[in-house]
Amino acid sequence: MIKAGIIGATGYAGNEIVRLLSSHRETGIEWLVSKSYKGQQYADIYRNFCDIIDMECLGNDIDALLDRVDVVFTATPQGFLASILNKKMLEKARFIDLSADYRIKDVGVYEEWYKIGHGSPELIEEAVYGLCEVNRDKIRNTRLLANPGCYTTCSILTAYPLVKEHLIDPATLVINALSGVSGAGRGAKVNNLFCEVNENAKAYGVGTHRHTPEIEEQLSYAYGEKITISFTPHLVPMNRGILVTETASLIEGADEDSIRKAYEKHFGKESFIRLMKNGTNPETRFVEGSNYTDIGFKVDRRTNRVIMMGALDNLVKGAAGQAVQNMNIMFGFDESEGLRAVPMVP
Amino acid sequence: MIKAGIIGATGYAGNEIVRLLSSHRETGIEWLVSKSYKGQQYADIYRNFCDIIDMECLGNDIDALLDRVDVVFTATPQGFLASILNKKMLEKARFIDLSADYRIKDVGVYEEWYKIGHGSPELIEEAVYGLCEVNRDKIRNTRLLANPGCYTTCSILTAYPLVKEHLIDPATLVINALSGVSGAGRGAKVNNLFCEVNENAKAYGVGTHRHTPEIEEQLSYAYGEKITISFTPHLVPMNRGILVTETASLIEGADEDSIRKAYEKHFGKESFIRLMKNGTNPETRFVEGSNYTDIGFKVDRRTNRVIMMGALDNLVKGAAGQAVQNMNIMFGFDESEGLRAVPMVP
Amino acid sequence: MIKAGIIGATGYAGNEIVRLLSSHRETGIEWLVSKSYKGQQYADIYRNFCDIIDMECLGNDIDALLDRVDVVFTATPQGFLASILNKKMLEKARFIDLSADYRIKDVGVYEEWYKIGHGSPELIEEAVYGLCEVNRDKIRNTRLLANPGCYTTCSILTAYPLVKEHLIDPATLVINALSGVSGAGRGAKVNNLFCEVNENAKAYGVGTHRHTPEIEEQLSYAYGEKITISFTPHLVPMNRGILVTETASLIEGADEDSIRKAYEKHFGKESFIRLMKNGTNPETRFVEGSNYTDIGFKVDRRTNRVIMMGALDNLVKGAAGQAVQNMNIMFGFDESEGLRAVPMVP
Amino acid sequence: MIKAGIIGATGYAGNEIVRLLSSHRETGIEWLVSKSYKGQQYADIYRNFCDIIDMECLGNDIDALLDRVDVVFTATPQGFLASILNKKMLEKARFIDLSADYRIKDVGVYEEWYKIGHGSPELIEEAVYGLCEVNRDKIRNTRLLANPGCYTTCSILTAYPLVKEHLIDPATLVINALSGVSGAGRGAKVNNLFCEVNENAKAYGVGTHRHTPEIEEQLSYAYGEKITISFTPHLVPMNRGILVTETASLIEGADEDSIRKAYEKHFGKESFIRLMKNGTNPETRFVEGSNYTDIGFKVDRRTNRVIMMGALDNLVKGAAGQAVQNMNIMFGFDESEGLRAVPMVP
Repeated sequence: MIKAGIIGATGYAGNEIVRLLSSHRETGIEWLVSKSYKGQQYADIYRNFCDIIDMECLGNDIDALLDRVDVVFTATPQGFLASILNKKMLEKARFIDLSADYRIKDVGVYEEWYKIGHGSPELIEEAVYGLCEVNRDKIRNTRLLANPGCYTTCSILTAYPLVKEHLIDPATLVINALSGVSGAGRGAKVNNLFCEVNENAKAYGVGTHRHTPEIEEQLSYAYGEKITISFTPHLVPMNRGILVTETASLIEGADEDSIRKAYEKHFGKESFIRLMKNGTNPETRFVEGSNYTDIGFKVDRRTNRVIMMGALDNLVKGAAGQAVQNMNIMFGFDESEGLRAVPMVP
Repeated sequence: MIKAGIIGATGYAGNEIVRLLSSHRETGIEWLVSKSYKGQQYADIYRNFCDIIDMECLGNDIDALLDRVDVVFTATPQGFLASILNKKMLEKARFIDLSADYRIKDVGVYEEWYKIGHGSPELIEEAVYGLCEVNRDKIRNTRLLANPGCYTTCSILTAYPLVKEHLIDPATLVINALSGVSGAGRGAKVNNLFCEVNENAKAYGVGTHRHTPEIEEQLSYAYGEKITISFTPHLVPMNRGILVTETASLIEGADEDSIRKAYEKHFGKESFIRLMKNGTNPETRFVEGSNYTDIGFKVDRRTNRVIMMGALDNLVKGAAGQAVQNMNIMFGFDESEGLRAVPMVP
Repeated sequence: MIKAGIIGATGYAGNEIVRLLSSHRETGIEWLVSKSYKGQQYADIYRNFCDIIDMECLGNDIDALLDRVDVVFTATPQGFLASILNKKMLEKARFIDLSADYRIKDVGVYEEWYKIGHGSPELIEEAVYGLCEVNRDKIRNTRLLANPGCYTTCSILTAYPLVKEHLIDPATLVINALSGVSGAGRGAKVNNLFCEVNENAKAYGVGTHRHTPEIEEQLSYAYGEKITISFTPHLVPMNRGILVTETASLIEGADEDSIRKAYEKHFGKESFIRLMKNGTNPETRFVEGSNYTDIGFKVDRRTNRVIMMGALDNLVKGAAGQAVQNMNIMFGFDESEGLRAVPMVP
Repeated sequence: MIKAGIIGATGYAGNEIVRLLSSHRETGIEWLVSKSYKGQQYADIYRNFCDIIDMECLGNDIDALLDRVDVVFTATPQGFLASILNKKMLEKARFIDLSADYRIKDVGVYEEWYKIGHGSPELIEEAVYGLCEVNRDKIRNTRLLANPGCYTTCSILTAYPLVKEHLIDPATLVINALSGVSGAGRGAKVNNLFCEVNENAKAYGVGTHRHTPEIEEQLSYAYGEKITISFTPHLVPMNRGILVTETASLIEGADEDSIRKAYEKHFGKESFIRLMKNGTNPETRFVEGSNYTDIGFKVDRRTNRVIMMGALDNLVKGAAGQAVQNMNIMFGFDESEGLRAVPMVP
């Protein structure tokens, strides 16, 4: 039994970590930090936890808190962890960071896309990118885990086997993604009001979304060469869910059979990736509340392209669930512990 | 470990029983019956169960199936179970019926409100009305459990302590209820199409809704005299959730303190009822996916009335969850087994 | 052709006035005031007006602006107009105030429910309560029009004929109301974020909602005696719409026939009130975008009560539409001018 | 003043024609045909028309009905009009067909994608494809107007100027599209139930959607050579709206300036196409209820691609609105007549 602390516990991702750890048999929640709600009962803010969690939100006195835990989850704004983390802290507890601070190896790329300076570039090297299905071995021993973004996880997993096996031409890869609104966080912004989002669909961050370099970096590792992609995210009126549709030209010889084999080779034994039957497309509702990524594809002979599709719950596999999965790997627990919930439909 | 069969497994309530039993440590699912999808893989219809359940939907050959199970859940249309059930079947397995067939003791009332004949009125007497928090003792030993309706469970629990303790005048009780759309079932009807329901609110079944006599019967038992109430249900655009708002005149002497005491007396130790703090109203999102009923109230001195409010998830505590809770009581399991999931927000 | 100015033009109600006046053949929009967006193009904020309106949002320099218009609409927070209005301003232009500042005749009641002081109590007397169908004659000549609230308009119109004709016992009147989210305004508040409202239903302001005294005052005028009611509002996940369900005991002799006659007597010739056939309930979608109030009722002989139901679009008949209807009456235009749009379904 | 008949008046597109013609000053609705609701009052089905339209739905006795009208709108299933239309009928009235029957010139392509035989291939030649902004001249004189599909209108208009001016390489064109649910029609299908669509996003018809050949045919005319594209439609939980995101490689020399000039050249004077400012993306809510198509674009120098985006209301510009616009052109009315409504937000 280990002890966990959560910083940023009252955001949507933070709350989801709390939800998942509540049923985790190897981990206890030791403290919850929330700058905005310091001093308030957690269950007064998230009343789903009424009669379940009896803890007060603490402030940012991280140093003292570190002594009480084995692992810290940071579900905090970009730049926060980078600005406070140091080697001494990493000796006290292992960190799982849900922000982007340690995801990108090239600090220049980070600073260019995020428009902020990086507070601890010397720690980037040791951070491990926590895409469980791809980096499992490195994850085991790290003290600093950079948990992937929601769009990123879905975009990479959906294309990974075909990129890795050189079945598609990565220069032709076009990714369109749809996201539920919880991905935008719980900040009080006019843009995220019910009446601004409901009955609406829009693209945003066109050509500039920060998950782009993260996707490119990881797919480049897989391909063995630098890849540049088009990534266009969209906001659609639902609470949860990411759906990606990725289009790419097939290399000569690639066909339905070789594509399926590539998916089976890389993901056939994965607990949290489900490969759809031919003719079946992933839908976000079928993964809601769970840690699954559902992946399907369609070969289009008319255009000699493949259309790959992936779906996940942005707050689970796209954030808190993958963070817990990473913790399970890091601490040697069963990788599915705390993550066995069946998706809830409708 | 017992074995369960589910008839009507591809409706929303049936699917929810499958979801809940999937994580139940004392019960295995033995078979699934679905008239509409006979011969198809269950996970092809409800793809949330992909890689989780590998069972084919069976047809209605109930007799042979009964030999294989300890308990049968029927999530079937009104009249179905009544038309086939007999004593011999009850000797083979215990039945938990999610339809209204055995909820109302007076068969004349049943036939008047449901507009159908009752196929086995001789079995009504032995059926137990499965409102767990009220009838727990009788539930333990029954072979035929009439699982309460969704509106009914919420309406009764919210008012029960005040009716039982004679703190309100039941002749003044006005119940308004809001329901998510899953309560209308999965039948292909124009009225339940997305574009007919979304961005809309309406009352329906005004003065004639079939849950009315069920509420009246149970509240009459609690009060000790026959009670007649007003019940007006509404459809609002969300998947899950029941919210009831009940208004009644206080009897002389009733006040906030005596009302809270009544709730504490009857529900203070219940695992699945959460009493809200003063000033806090229940919201359906805070019970979503869980077996909780959240209850709050407000004394209005201007009108000398109390406004009672209750919220539950119509597919869990309002259907499948209460059915599993009843099974747990009937078979001597921990009453919370399979029902410990934390509500999921957002 | 008259000229209109709108203060608070970038709120949802303000924007709806702009939308309605855009197609009004007797009125031109002269200026738009928005404190928050001063200096910005209106069509950059509300891009529905792209290529339609080419105006910049002005600041609060009201005095100079008054000289340019015949009528001013104030879609502003409670207390704003009361704090600046004076008789000299009323000589320059006629005011239609969408806030509550001049709706309640008893300034003590206003200050008690709104928890703010009233800045110009001496003007309350001359203000006319702009419920068009009830106060048409007084509206014609007023300089200061207090436009009714959204819940209020729906609640009063739905019960008015039965109260006026003494067909129900007003002491038993219980009003439950559902509202779409635009009624909460466009302020950046966590409570109104998409993920806090979507897939949720809740009551709020129980026993304390500010529209209560407004409903009571107007129904008391109709009845001839002071009436106290129960009013419980609820928030449901849709953009627009108010639905009220009102329950009251019938007086002896009242029946379906006399009730229908009362509705016909008072509203049979009204352009913007539609009486539903027996057995048909109003639904918010059928009035969306229009100035209609749809009203239906059901006599429940079991309880000797009548259930009255009303539906309107909170931004049209509940705010901007009624404001324009009032302007039409005040300036002698056809009462339907600018308000003839057919409700849009779906 | 001309007279119009509508066949298929109770589907969503049919109802939208009725809504638009209700405010059209040059056209009267003479009759409404609905196979499903024959003999019922139209306003009993679409209660938004209560007190507005007093007409009974007629059956399919088209021949006699033709004598009474100048123009017929058919909002009917694929194959219906093709199976009954002949030259004699075309002499009696002009036809505006909202189905796909006469959109595709090559009957083999039609039969391959639609999987049905064509009942009157001899009439295809004279049919004019009613994309108003592109084919205005031909539309004027036709008797048989093939009204474009919703995805098609949006997809073509968004790319047209860049294809026409050879600023992009059409072989690289990837179109992703999102649609509201009304595009799926009003048929009672499980797939379109609220609980199946709400809180969900999915791709469908991947590589096989019937609007694909229609888009290809029209863009091929524009380009001057045969074009093959990738088109992937998605269903998202909203009533109305199409959003397309189109990605294509720029030809050498194409830049933001030349692209904007191309849009201005072809659409700068169009009443119903609005070109967004740089940095502004179209959103479906800003066109809701209106006949506008909003178009924006972003040049991505990293990938040397342009991302084009278009938004329209699938029931208006994507169906009924464009049909009325076509009628206006065909009969010499002001092209905006009946279509001047400002989009409604929220």
